[in-house]
Amino acid sequence: MKKVGVAILGLGVVGGGTYKILTEHRDKYIKTHGVDITVESVLELRKDRALALGVEESRIASNISEICSNPEVDIVIEVMGGVEPAKSYVLAALNAGKSVVTSNKELYCKYGYELEQAAKHNHVGLFFEATCVGGVPVIRALLDNLQGNKITSIIGIINGTTNYILTKMTDDGKSYAEVLKEAQSLGYAEADPTSDVEGYDAAYKLSILSSICFNKKIPFADIYREGITNISEDDIAYGKKLGYVIKLLAIGKDAEKGVEVRVHPSFVRATHPLASVSDSYNAVYITGDCVEDVMLYGRGAGALPTGSAIVGDVIYCATHTQHRYSTFPNTEKAASSTKFITNFESAYYLRLLAADRAGELSKVTSVLGRYGISVAKVVQDIDEKNRNGEVNLILVTHSTKESNVKKAVAAIGKDISDTRVVSVIRVLV
Amino acid sequence: MKKVGVAILGLGVVGGGTYKILTEHRDKYIKTHGVDITVESVLELRKDRALALGVEESRIASNISEICSNPEVDIVIEVMGGVEPAKSYVLAALNAGKSVVTSNKELYCKYGYELEQAAKHNHVGLFFEATCVGGVPVIRALLDNLQGNKITSIIGIINGTTNYILTKMTDDGKSYAEVLKEAQSLGYAEADPTSDVEGYDAAYKLSILSSICFNKKIPFADIYREGITNISEDDIAYGKKLGYVIKLLAIGKDAEKGVEVRVHPSFVRATHPLASVSDSYNAVYITGDCVEDVMLYGRGAGALPTGSAIVGDVIYCATHTQHRYSTFPNTEKAASSTKFITNFESAYYLRLLAADRAGELSKVTSVLGRYGISVAKVVQDIDEKNRNGEVNLILVTHSTKESNVKKAVAAIGKDISDTRVVSVIRVLV
Repeated sequence: MKKVGVAILGLGVVGGGTYKILTEHRDKYIKTHGVDITVESVLELRKDRALALGVEESRIASNISEICSNPEVDIVIEVMGGVEPAKSYVLAALNAGKSVVTSNKELYCKYGYELEQAAKHNHVGLFFEATCVGGVPVIRALLDNLQGNKITSIIGIINGTTNYILTKMTDDGKSYAEVLKEAQSLGYAEADPTSDVEGYDAAYKLSILSSICFNKKIPFADIYREGITNISEDDIAYGKKLGYVIKLLAIGKDAEKGVEVRVHPSFVRATHPLASVSDSYNAVYITGDCVEDVMLYGRGAGALPTGSAIVGDVIYCATHTQHRYSTFPNTEKAASSTKFITNFESAYYLRLLAADRAGELSKVTSVLGRYGISVAKVVQDIDEKNRNGEVNLILVTHSTKESNVKKAVAAIGKDISDTRVVSVIRVLV
Repeated sequence: MKKVGVAILGLGVVGGGTYKILTEHRDKYIKTHGVDITVESVLELRKDRALALGVEESRIASNISEICSNPEVDIVIEVMGGVEPAKSYVLAALNAGKSVVTSNKELYCKYGYELEQAAKHNHVGLFFEATCVGGVPVIRALLDNLQGNKITSIIGIINGTTNYILTKMTDDGKSYAEVLKEAQSLGYAEADPTSDVEGYDAAYKLSILSSICFNKKIPFADIYREGITNISEDDIAYGKKLGYVIKLLAIGKDAEKGVEVRVHPSFVRATHPLASVSDSYNAVYITGDCVEDVMLYGRGAGALPTGSAIVGDVIYCATHTQHRYSTFPNTEKAASSTKFITNFESAYYLRLLAADRAGELSKVTSVLGRYGISVAKVVQDIDEKNRNGEVNLILVTHSTKESNVKKAVAAIGKDISDTRVVSVIRVLV
């Protein structure tokens, strides 16, 4: 019987879930995989957490060195989150000849190149399936199933908190602020929700996923990022009338003319498979030149779903001797040959507040036309006036360049008195 | 540069697609995986097919021995379909020390245990991702991502032809016979469609998938199988009114009391993620004790999607030295400890033709009650009579045992004059 010892760094939500899975399924893995995986050590400052999970006191380490020098530990699971001290601990483990399994998206996104270098140097494994989309098997699918494809696009709903908030806003017609407060009280959003609601978390994951998809380094710094804090319940309701659902999308595209990587709210047609991904469910929609469209869907977060991904990596690591590293030069920055497109093309939803006067629509479309923007859908209801006597004018454009829309929005504000653009939301085409 | 030679047995739709992917992406794989994969040989009786694809005449083998004795061939891709001669050829290749990648679900389902034995004996790889659900990365997800879970259920739409037919019947209100004919003329259904429409193809795949899911051998012979040939456009229309969509489902469940494996048409709630899997798209919906629900969706067939799965296996095989075999005793038959449940529980949709008389509904529900069956939904419209003056009476039951429904249906025919059950369709709960 092969014996493999693991250490867990951090016994928070995911660390606790991982501990439970490993201990409760120990006999199963002996039977199915012929390997006895035991938790030899944990590192957790809050000793009570460890004891509450049933960890023997003798297995609670007081510092990372104890774990690195413990010959019973073969694999170190890092589930602390954040860059430091996680980074120093992971490097120490790798340099001590331990393989590492991590769920830390920020760390892997920002310093994956450095961690991988250390793993290569020490001939150990570095596994990171759990960094992206919880229990959904996306990273290994890209590495070991779809690797024969030229992947042209990946579109993901890859942050559970924002998807929960947007779903609630849609279903209950409540404001962002109201739903955020509810989500915080339920533990679905952090006290400081910035990383989720401003799109940082999604951008970390998009950096990791698109680097694998496109076989080139896509650093976090090159990803356009816009959060959901300005989305209003009114726009969600108007979008619904037009057959759209709002989602925070992470979009990566790789084409002849360059790479496009962006995280922002977007309207999605209600018939698109991504439209029905609700609440804290996540999904990635991948297009390859051979496989066509593939969608992988499931729980993007949570103790046991993320623990499932971690334990999948642990069992793989425990039963395989060969290590595998990136299929692209994994450097800090993008290769100089990688061209990023920032003035990307999209369809746009524009909501304007206009004076209730004949000819306003014509003025607006004329300004849009000046910038080469043509209109696909219009909704105007003069019976729905706000307290200032203004009416909502909703336009959805055909696909156009971002820069044209910015110029047109500025020109409308300047050239048309009493009419202004209040919302600009991209629409997935 | 590592050089790896492959041979392709069969240049039909999938073989041709695989050849194209490998030759057109050769430079890409050199760059991303540091391996030069070349098609060294093909076995195809119709020489014109090979020549039309651009295969050099010198690389067209005239028999399997030529391939087995060719030292340039490391991996044999079997995409012939059917049991013989595919089985003999695969065994010959394995015994000649070649790794094998196959898309042959019937062969792998029926003789996987024998092929694996030969692979183990010869220390070579046996890869079969392409046997199930085309380009959708399901097998490796089960083996290398979800393997830490106790999988409790897998529900799949895993046959493209039947899903295409049922979708067309639903969208166009046409009969099975009519849509089948159309599908045949478009090449979406075979001239002899038995394997697809009677559920054999789905059952082969369910045997392979559920064996992996449940870590025990689930032979084809133990799978309950029922095709779609008796599904009528009327039932589809009535189901729609009740909020259901019809699908040919492959269902595997593993619980304390035993294993349940069955392929049959089933109504699915329109809000279930599987309901929106239309046309020739396929999906598997997997539930594990840690990961919760995961759905994997994409093209379940076709030259390039299936080729994508094959090439994924080829690249994996070409870049990994360690072979991996089943995580259960892979024998011909099920283990004697495996208990199969044949009298399974389900909700049921029943359509009856009843005399337009007061009290008929009450008689029917009274018979159902006698067998412990309670009714969840009823639809009856006395204004919709058929030419015999009969009315349709639609009942949906709560979850009950299959045997109770069979007895109740027989009793209704015997005990209630002028009223008979015309359709019985299971409903996914």
